[in-house]
Amino acid sequence: MATPEAAQPSAASITPHTGKLGIMIPGMGAVATTLIAGVEAIRRGYAKPIGSMSQMGTIRLGKRTDNRTPLIKDFAPLAPLDDLVFTGWDIFGGNLYDAAKTAAVLDRDQLDAMKPFLESIEPMPAVFEERYVKRLTPKHQKVGKNKCDLANQIRNDIAEFKAKSGTDRQVMIWCGSTEIYIEQKPVHQTLEAFEKGLTEDDPDISPSMLYAWAALKEGIPFANGAPNLTVDIPAMRELSKKMNTPICGKDFKTGQTFIKTVLAPAFKTRQLGVAGWYSTNILGNRDGEVLDDPDNFKTKEVSKLGVLEHILQPELNPDLYGDMYHKVRINYYPPRGDNKEGWDNIDIFGWLGYPMQLKVDFLCRDSILAAPLALDLCLFMDLAQRTPSLRGLGIQEWLSFYFKDPDAAPGVYPEHDLFIQSMKLKNTLRHIMGEDLITHLGLDYYGE
Amino acid sequence: MATPEAAQPSAASITPHTGKLGIMIPGMGAVATTLIAGVEAIRRGYAKPIGSMSQMGTIRLGKRTDNRTPLIKDFAPLAPLDDLVFTGWDIFGGNLYDAAKTAAVLDRDQLDAMKPFLESIEPMPAVFEERYVKRLTPKHQKVGKNKCDLANQIRNDIAEFKAKSGTDRQVMIWCGSTEIYIEQKPVHQTLEAFEKGLTEDDPDISPSMLYAWAALKEGIPFANGAPNLTVDIPAMRELSKKMNTPICGKDFKTGQTFIKTVLAPAFKTRQLGVAGWYSTNILGNRDGEVLDDPDNFKTKEVSKLGVLEHILQPELNPDLYGDMYHKVRINYYPPRGDNKEGWDNIDIFGWLGYPMQLKVDFLCRDSILAAPLALDLCLFMDLAQRTPSLRGLGIQEWLSFYFKDPDAAPGVYPEHDLFIQSMKLKNTLRHIMGEDLITHLGLDYYGE
Amino acid sequence: MATPEAAQPSAASITPHTGKLGIMIPGMGAVATTLIAGVEAIRRGYAKPIGSMSQMGTIRLGKRTDNRTPLIKDFAPLAPLDDLVFTGWDIFGGNLYDAAKTAAVLDRDQLDAMKPFLESIEPMPAVFEERYVKRLTPKHQKVGKNKCDLANQIRNDIAEFKAKSGTDRQVMIWCGSTEIYIEQKPVHQTLEAFEKGLTEDDPDISPSMLYAWAALKEGIPFANGAPNLTVDIPAMRELSKKMNTPICGKDFKTGQTFIKTVLAPAFKTRQLGVAGWYSTNILGNRDGEVLDDPDNFKTKEVSKLGVLEHILQPELNPDLYGDMYHKVRINYYPPRGDNKEGWDNIDIFGWLGYPMQLKVDFLCRDSILAAPLALDLCLFMDLAQRTPSLRGLGIQEWLSFYFKDPDAAPGVYPEHDLFIQSMKLKNTLRHIMGEDLITHLGLDYYGE
Amino acid sequence: MATPEAAQPSAASITPHTGKLGIMIPGMGAVATTLIAGVEAIRRGYAKPIGSMSQMGTIRLGKRTDNRTPLIKDFAPLAPLDDLVFTGWDIFGGNLYDAAKTAAVLDRDQLDAMKPFLESIEPMPAVFEERYVKRLTPKHQKVGKNKCDLANQIRNDIAEFKAKSGTDRQVMIWCGSTEIYIEQKPVHQTLEAFEKGLTEDDPDISPSMLYAWAALKEGIPFANGAPNLTVDIPAMRELSKKMNTPICGKDFKTGQTFIKTVLAPAFKTRQLGVAGWYSTNILGNRDGEVLDDPDNFKTKEVSKLGVLEHILQPELNPDLYGDMYHKVRINYYPPRGDNKEGWDNIDIFGWLGYPMQLKVDFLCRDSILAAPLALDLCLFMDLAQRTPSLRGLGIQEWLSFYFKDPDAAPGVYPEHDLFIQSMKLKNTLRHIMGEDLITHLGLDYYGE
Repeated sequence: MATPEAAQPSAASITPHTGKLGIMIPGMGAVATTLIAGVEAIRRGYAKPIGSMSQMGTIRLGKRTDNRTPLIKDFAPLAPLDDLVFTGWDIFGGNLYDAAKTAAVLDRDQLDAMKPFLESIEPMPAVFEERYVKRLTPKHQKVGKNKCDLANQIRNDIAEFKAKSGTDRQVMIWCGSTEIYIEQKPVHQTLEAFEKGLTEDDPDISPSMLYAWAALKEGIPFANGAPNLTVDIPAMRELSKKMNTPICGKDFKTGQTFIKTVLAPAFKTRQLGVAGWYSTNILGNRDGEVLDDPDNFKTKEVSKLGVLEHILQPELNPDLYGDMYHKVRINYYPPRGDNKEGWDNIDIFGWLGYPMQLKVDFLCRDSILAAPLALDLCLFMDLAQRTPSLRGLGIQEWLSFYFKDPDAAPGVYPEHDLFIQSMKLKNTLRHIMGEDLITHLGLDYYGE
Repeated sequence: MATPEAAQPSAASITPHTGKLGIMIPGMGAVATTLIAGVEAIRRGYAKPIGSMSQMGTIRLGKRTDNRTPLIKDFAPLAPLDDLVFTGWDIFGGNLYDAAKTAAVLDRDQLDAMKPFLESIEPMPAVFEERYVKRLTPKHQKVGKNKCDLANQIRNDIAEFKAKSGTDRQVMIWCGSTEIYIEQKPVHQTLEAFEKGLTEDDPDISPSMLYAWAALKEGIPFANGAPNLTVDIPAMRELSKKMNTPICGKDFKTGQTFIKTVLAPAFKTRQLGVAGWYSTNILGNRDGEVLDDPDNFKTKEVSKLGVLEHILQPELNPDLYGDMYHKVRINYYPPRGDNKEGWDNIDIFGWLGYPMQLKVDFLCRDSILAAPLALDLCLFMDLAQRTPSLRGLGIQEWLSFYFKDPDAAPGVYPEHDLFIQSMKLKNTLRHIMGEDLITHLGLDYYGE
Repeated sequence: MATPEAAQPSAASITPHTGKLGIMIPGMGAVATTLIAGVEAIRRGYAKPIGSMSQMGTIRLGKRTDNRTPLIKDFAPLAPLDDLVFTGWDIFGGNLYDAAKTAAVLDRDQLDAMKPFLESIEPMPAVFEERYVKRLTPKHQKVGKNKCDLANQIRNDIAEFKAKSGTDRQVMIWCGSTEIYIEQKPVHQTLEAFEKGLTEDDPDISPSMLYAWAALKEGIPFANGAPNLTVDIPAMRELSKKMNTPICGKDFKTGQTFIKTVLAPAFKTRQLGVAGWYSTNILGNRDGEVLDDPDNFKTKEVSKLGVLEHILQPELNPDLYGDMYHKVRINYYPPRGDNKEGWDNIDIFGWLGYPMQLKVDFLCRDSILAAPLALDLCLFMDLAQRTPSLRGLGIQEWLSFYFKDPDAAPGVYPEHDLFIQSMKLKNTLRHIMGEDLITHLGLDYYGE
Repeated sequence: MATPEAAQPSAASITPHTGKLGIMIPGMGAVATTLIAGVEAIRRGYAKPIGSMSQMGTIRLGKRTDNRTPLIKDFAPLAPLDDLVFTGWDIFGGNLYDAAKTAAVLDRDQLDAMKPFLESIEPMPAVFEERYVKRLTPKHQKVGKNKCDLANQIRNDIAEFKAKSGTDRQVMIWCGSTEIYIEQKPVHQTLEAFEKGLTEDDPDISPSMLYAWAALKEGIPFANGAPNLTVDIPAMRELSKKMNTPICGKDFKTGQTFIKTVLAPAFKTRQLGVAGWYSTNILGNRDGEVLDDPDNFKTKEVSKLGVLEHILQPELNPDLYGDMYHKVRINYYPPRGDNKEGWDNIDIFGWLGYPMQLKVDFLCRDSILAAPLALDLCLFMDLAQRTPSLRGLGIQEWLSFYFKDPDAAPGVYPEHDLFIQSMKLKNTLRHIMGEDLITHLGLDYYGE
């Protein structure tokens, strides 16, 4: 029996990595500094890239009895950490050593050991629009006559970075704040309307869209760590396809939602009903401050709420999930800083409807969880760009694994189940490298 | 690209269900009464078979855009609930109405509504050996001149039940207590040695083995809800193969271990390290009482401890899981009765080694979680028996989904990850029914 | 050494209980029906008055070695449960059997066993003003030409109840909803202004004030289970003094705040600092529905937030409590009904400032906790009314034990510490009964 | 009305502090080094003595409206921190800088800043007997011909310390390990028997008893941070009385038991029943290692289990506490080091018997909680020694506040309720300083 997939590509068709890979980051706060300081610490042998599937993960090839389980980084032709060069934009200015101290994620000693390196990176002035993030006050921002001008300033920054850094390829990843909630408007529907909107300063074009547009125009893959609309609009999909440049989902799947997309599939696969799911978060970093504004929280809320519906499919399982009450709260709570805590109460029911409860308390660290996801996305988006069978797809659905809000082709529902996402990612790697896909059928061990 | 699996069978080769299916249960306490009363309540329309994949679960066929997602029970030719007939053995005697009242799992009102039905089922006297369960005192037990005689009394019970009940096929499922921990001895290595041991009253042949041997001799599939050694020995595998009769893993995967096999794969897929995992349980039912004996607890402990090692594979990920400290405790705590509570503290670490914690408190119900697993196992084991491509395999690895201690072919490591188990189960159903396997690659939605 | 208290009264001066005591309840929902059904169940010997200090509590008299520890109800001349007669007002109408079924607090079987009794109590039409509780729609309400007329209708109800029930004395206790937050206005400052406001339909006179005014005018003690302003205004204190009729604090101290006033004194007595305290609640009863309105929540929030400041006294302990971040959230969460859950995260710090955390998850039952408090308050307020040395005080500070928002004399800070409150209550009972106060000095056991 | 206490002493009768106070500590591990490094850090102004009632606590004097609330250290004539001199004994040798590093309680930076000071303190060789602590292997121990000789070596150490340090007074406080559980034997019944046992090497005389005997013989107050029997025997009480030298309770009340003695009084004062209380602890320090031995755990268990019975008094409240199931578990769990975690599940019941649950998770730090208790005990025991009305009492019951296992006069039950203990301590201070005792009656604010 054949799997229904298309003919298998040859690993040889992937353009090999050479030279340097530039990582360009709009928003150089807690996540970006944790990523960059971390990559440097790893390069120096101070620490391990824990949490990064691309660096620490293994992939089983062939049968269980074959004992072929290489590291992913030894299997797929990813750019090595030594070849990464970082830059970015930020509204607060200052160098990354200072930014990392303010973020207070990493130990002071650790930062001090890499002080000259961190001081050597200074964010470029960023595009900012108060309407989108009211709680922050920029100190270091671009001025332009309209949004088109601002977007072209970004393109110019890219060109200068290419020249100065000598990088062969670039990836852009948004690590800035959550913008306020907006819905799709006509300006988002076609590339033409969008580009017209740029020159007309359309209020529905947010700063993150300017970065995404600039990146795609330059043939640079774009990933989005926040729940902003950004590339989740027809205009950007059109541009992505046109430029043969990958885009993907949005909003790093870190703390509570990470756990949610683990537990919900477990309930579903066991056909345990869910009567209610109450999730609350406390966090005290800048992210918490921004999300204290209801308009910004709404963007995050929509991203977080969609998860359960997609996984549990109440329309297919009305007896189990038809009456589920789902509530998500985020509270700014300064005593914790970046050390977020998520508490979930889940009311489930089993055999004959008898109720049970599950409570989960996750004392996590926001940027520590996000940084390795950002790293993997950069490396995999770069790989996608070099892989003929992926580059042209536009949306890289196989990277759904990393997002609270994964993207998928129009008409196809996104996969939120972390385990389906993981399988999709790994089978995609097997596929592009010419290995057999894994189905976990495994009857042949028994001599069928 | 072809999956490496064998040629696909035709669904037509499966013997259809006809007549009645007999469910024979050694140990008619909390789980068995909850199962039987529950099935009757469902047949009468009082309640739903929540928690049962075979009854409530759906299976996606074809592509996501095909919208083919039937109920499993409408897809695979399972025996319908209306055709199940129950019997069993118990050391306490009395009818099932009284046993269910003692178990105190289901509401009194619910039991009263089915009183005549439950009163009509009276367990047969059971085989009991004090050495294996010291905390219980039997009131209703078989007497025989040796273990061979006792085992043949069970075979005789089976024969009488077949005749009296008019069932066409039977399945046996152990829902009795956890026996003390024993290791494999020579008597367990071959069928010949085992059958000699029966006549010689070998002390290493436990009561549960007598039931399993009797079932297999009669061509009846045998499943094991407890962590006892039972069929997990070469002699039984030999008998299973010889009789073309399915066996499978052991120890229902219900509360804490269910959650553990959900979270551990999540940490692993995200390459989050685990420094320690402390699990404690409080429960107040008969199971808790039996497990208060250290010898019986050891059997359960071994079953519970193996889970993490198999999922996390410390040998492949020494930086992440090489120093993990795993501890499992079970405490008899009468105030809760059957309403078990499991509390887990998990010390994980992420990017650069920064520590985080996850705490899970599961207020569950032991028998409510176990009953639908028992049901599914009966129906799927019966299906396996009717399916030529499965029957001859002996061990039904595709049913690993249901067990704390899944069984696999010699030389093949068992799969503990709930999501791999679920995929294995569903792809096996697709396979025997002639449907395409699912790999979650899904590139073809993008017009590759 | 003498304690600085006034000369001790004689127990003989207390008017003994005779006849019947009428309990008049505005708001006959979950709390009131749980109280009344419970008292009846206790009278019939079906259950115990657990949670009621007046019924189950003991009081130590004399030295530890004296072994004099009577039940409080055997020590103080309280009205016995057999002599209580219940009535009240409600906006939903219907009898108490139906109201109790809707509240879904007590088991159906329990209610059915007392059905005729519960059906025999029918609430009188209530005063309602939409402005104060927007989420509810009354079906059974008084109509009057102004607030003075409505208040006098209540006085008339009281008079009729006295006559019809043959009760010798009455107590009124508000078990209705939380009204919206209002601040003191001129109309609340004097009795004269208030009574003028009644005739002028002043919008700042809420329904609960009408009941309190009517009760006090009739010489009936008034207690308040909700955080409404009600008697917490100079006008009512004036009336209370003038009528020699007791009033007391407000808002039953049940779930999370009960625990908070237990833990905060513990931290303080050990000089452990508090950096932050985050409290969230989920509840699904009518109370939760009403509190989902931000205006009503504010009344509750103010009541809940004051607690920590009063106990921890940051002005005296700025190093320990000066920077505390305190947040309280209430979420309407229907899956739970009356079974509220409160989760607290507390960030404390100890020796040299090292941080620690305490998490408390309280799976409680709102009305089950409140009902015995309501009972005690009725009995103790009646006792106060019969005790010369208490009656004239107006505010009964010794009953602070029962309230989230205890009341105290102007210029005296209220005591929120549950243990000080308990000591205050018990020493007050000792005092009025002519027993030695307890100081816990206890040096004399050592032959000093 | 007069309180029944004896005539009030005059504050003037207390011998004032002069010169230096020597603190002598058997067992210089985590608690002792945290105490000593902490006191030094506080003396240098690096940190605050958080958790110490003697240093940070205030005491209300007079009426609430008097606004007299001095710090306790400004009220009672305690020795100031500047005048403390530390020494002690330990079986591992090495200086305190190294011991503190091994304990890993305080941050390395903090220790480094005081390195010369900590290095200057070297423990003297300790008395050790393997039978009492099997899990530890001493490197630095006294050798003697019998226990009498060993005890006199301790007395000699004391004499040398007095001379060398120039301290005017000393206090001894046991901060060593938990010894195995032993019960009282004849050798413990009289001083004469005990002293005979010393020369006869009686196996029931433990090392901690040698220290206590030596201290009392030298007129030095002795406090006990561990649950060992030590001074809890008639022989030691006799010696304490004879020498006019204070002794007190045992086993620092820190993490879980601290919380337990807070919650249990809360349930009791509200007459909430307790069906079960399950407490589990995970800790990874040397204490955890020692307590992994069942014989040593038993000593701790007995100390921890007694708490609830004494507070809840099931004999007085059989309906509420008569059937309580109480279980305490301690698990050695290395990933946490000194950062202990205690998890409690409490099954309570309220009005009519309805069940509720409370779960408490305390992420604490063992030595951070213990160190300030050790400090307070030293200062208060020294004060007791200088106070005529306390010195002669032997047992200082007013210091019960600090102990899991408080001591009381024969025939008097000990007080475990933290709030009674706190009141007892503060009223004792008021009493010896000639202030009015506080009863919380407070009727006089109302012009009675």
